Amino acid sequence: MDYAKESLRLHGEWAGKIEVSVRVPVENADDLSLAYTPGVAQPCLAIQKDPEQSYALTRRHNLCAVITDGTAVLGLGDIGPEAGMPVMEGKCVLFKAFGGVDAFPLCVKTKDVDEFVNTVHLLSGSFGGVNLEDIAAPRCFEIEKKLKEKCDIPIFHDDQHGTAIVVAAALINALKITGRKIENIHAVFSGAGAAGTAIFKLLWAMGLRHAVLCDIKGVVHPGRPDLADDPYLDELARMTRPAVRGGLKEALVGADLFVGVSAPNLVTAGMVKSMNPGPILFPMANPTPEIMPDAAKAAGAAVVGTGRSDFPNQINNVLAFPGVFRGAFDVRAREINEEMKLAAAHALASLVGEDELAAGLILPKAFDPRVGPAVASAVAQAARDTGAARL
Amino acid sequence: MDYAKESLRLHGEWAGKIEVSVRVPVENADDLSLAYTPGVAQPCLAIQKDPEQSYALTRRHNLCAVITDGTAVLGLGDIGPEAGMPVMEGKCVLFKAFGGVDAFPLCVKTKDVDEFVNTVHLLSGSFGGVNLEDIAAPRCFEIEKKLKEKCDIPIFHDDQHGTAIVVAAALINALKITGRKIENIHAVFSGAGAAGTAIFKLLWAMGLRHAVLCDIKGVVHPGRPDLADDPYLDELARMTRPAVRGGLKEALVGADLFVGVSAPNLVTAGMVKSMNPGPILFPMANPTPEIMPDAAKAAGAAVVGTGRSDFPNQINNVLAFPGVFRGAFDVRAREINEEMKLAAAHALASLVGEDELAAGLILPKAFDPRVGPAVASAVAQAARDTGAARL
Repeated sequence: MDYAKESLRLHGEWAGKIEVSVRVPVENADDLSLAYTPGVAQPCLAIQKDPEQSYALTRRHNLCAVITDGTAVLGLGDIGPEAGMPVMEGKCVLFKAFGGVDAFPLCVKTKDVDEFVNTVHLLSGSFGGVNLEDIAAPRCFEIEKKLKEKCDIPIFHDDQHGTAIVVAAALINALKITGRKIENIHAVFSGAGAAGTAIFKLLWAMGLRHAVLCDIKGVVHPGRPDLADDPYLDELARMTRPAVRGGLKEALVGADLFVGVSAPNLVTAGMVKSMNPGPILFPMANPTPEIMPDAAKAAGAAVVGTGRSDFPNQINNVLAFPGVFRGAFDVRAREINEEMKLAAAHALASLVGEDELAAGLILPKAFDPRVGPAVASAVAQAARDTGAARL
Repeated sequence: MDYAKESLRLHGEWAGKIEVSVRVPVENADDLSLAYTPGVAQPCLAIQKDPEQSYALTRRHNLCAVITDGTAVLGLGDIGPEAGMPVMEGKCVLFKAFGGVDAFPLCVKTKDVDEFVNTVHLLSGSFGGVNLEDIAAPRCFEIEKKLKEKCDIPIFHDDQHGTAIVVAAALINALKITGRKIENIHAVFSGAGAAGTAIFKLLWAMGLRHAVLCDIKGVVHPGRPDLADDPYLDELARMTRPAVRGGLKEALVGADLFVGVSAPNLVTAGMVKSMNPGPILFPMANPTPEIMPDAAKAAGAAVVGTGRSDFPNQINNVLAFPGVFRGAFDVRAREINEEMKLAAAHALASLVGEDELAAGLILPKAFDPRVGPAVASAVAQAARDTGAARL
């Protein structure tokens, strides 16, 4: 199917992929007096007395804002807030279909960090959580950090943390298959933007200790001149302190794991051959990965996962974010912390049984009905364990 | 029925009066590729090329934000943004049920005019229109004015203009019944807040020329000392230039029409008797009007309308706003102008046939299925006639 052409046609036909539906009867004057005036004054007063009641008496408990500034939409870059809306609506569709979460799309017409943060903060009483989407790095880091400080509801940048959770799940199973332990592997990351940084940090929280990050300028290392102006990249350099210099080619020699969120065709067969025997590769550049799975396997890769649905092991965010918010909402979590993300990753990984685990099957399928509930349950438990749960 | 108690119970049971629903199939990988990546890139690019396409390719064409700051919720006053949300959700229910409009509730946590305006403006690319709700006067005037200047979508403060449209419709029929012409009547307004001001201005646009506005300090007249600090009230004084001084009692002598959006029991039988014979009274203070309908009739009123559903002639905003936005959206209107509001009022009035028109029947019922379509059609035509329509 020509997805591009057909999708454009269908979007015109659909005229919106979501809508607002009514959950209450509106048949007669009594109905109006209960759902609206004069009856509605009572729930209003109850919330005024105790703002927590807004979760019980309105849709807030199940409502997630999906918010973008349109600066990093898919692989299309900065296409503007309105143009990002088909993606935001699509995300809302997935939230509802896979997690039962009511998600509503908003685009904010500013590229100023503080203005964006202020706008979202002023709206935060309307929602139970905020999913940031398609915001360019490094602005997305600062926005997320400031919003987490200002808001008392979960703030989650899916391009970072959703991706990180699914990669972590894939890695857990790939390590099992290849008989490795995360503490011992050497990992190389290509791309140090939103996704790359978040994946690195979550794996680091899982125990990774040997890592080299590469960006368009090569290995990210302490003292690299441009890092003086980039506190986020500088932090990564100080965490990893790589001995190697040069680029991806130099970094990959002797590595066990490649994680790519960068650009097409950056990894050659020769580079795969220079890695430790039976390496794990997650080349996730979209739509064309850093190396095609067949080429990676031919060069000796033990396990390969990409972002594509037409190859095995699709690393697909939809495995994570609907269940993550479902779980967070179920316990009215104040935040989505590292422990909750790790719990989601382990829950995902454990859905592939020992008997079916294989190089071509390290993740459950997006349409596996166990995924959402399993992730939600693990996230909710981790929220309780870490004191993030309010219920 | 004890609406207060039952409404609180039901709000807990409903757990939200609206939800976000999915309009597209999400059954398999192909569905995802069309509604989301990779297919969704095409509608994004189409909107980037032509932002108007956001109306055709997302839900924007039918989507209205219902936005409050929680400062004038019902008669409850400043109860805060979260506490206003049950009303906002209720409003969204009415938008959908009576106008087929997808409306989404937002509360903005600020009392600063410019911050509120900036927040709404930054979000305006997400919506086809904005319905402001329950914002205290005079801040609401400034907010509406500034938003109209900044945004290219309809901005409508229902507490002002929705009320004004329904009062205008009621008056059109009340004038018929009592054989008066708007140019000749003497009108007295009690309450010069959001609703009072808007009603006065719409009737003025209809031809009213003799009016006295009263507020808590009495007759609003040029030179009243406090008006120096209130440009909005000062404008009303300069438009009406009343000869009378004093309060409501003095103002009502010889009047044909009383419009009350103020406080309970301000009008006595004696005051009604001092009006011209067979006067028209719209005492709309809620839940207790300025004078009860029975008392007004006993004192000689020819026509009485209130905000209450348990008396004849309920002046209910739900008669206007769903159809107004339906009509505006149907022609993708840039604004909701005076002509569109007047067209809505005349459409509403005309739904009461000459043969059924009576002192106790000057407005159609809220559940009359003709109301929404009739208002929408008139508003759309007026938008076309005045160049406000983009379709």
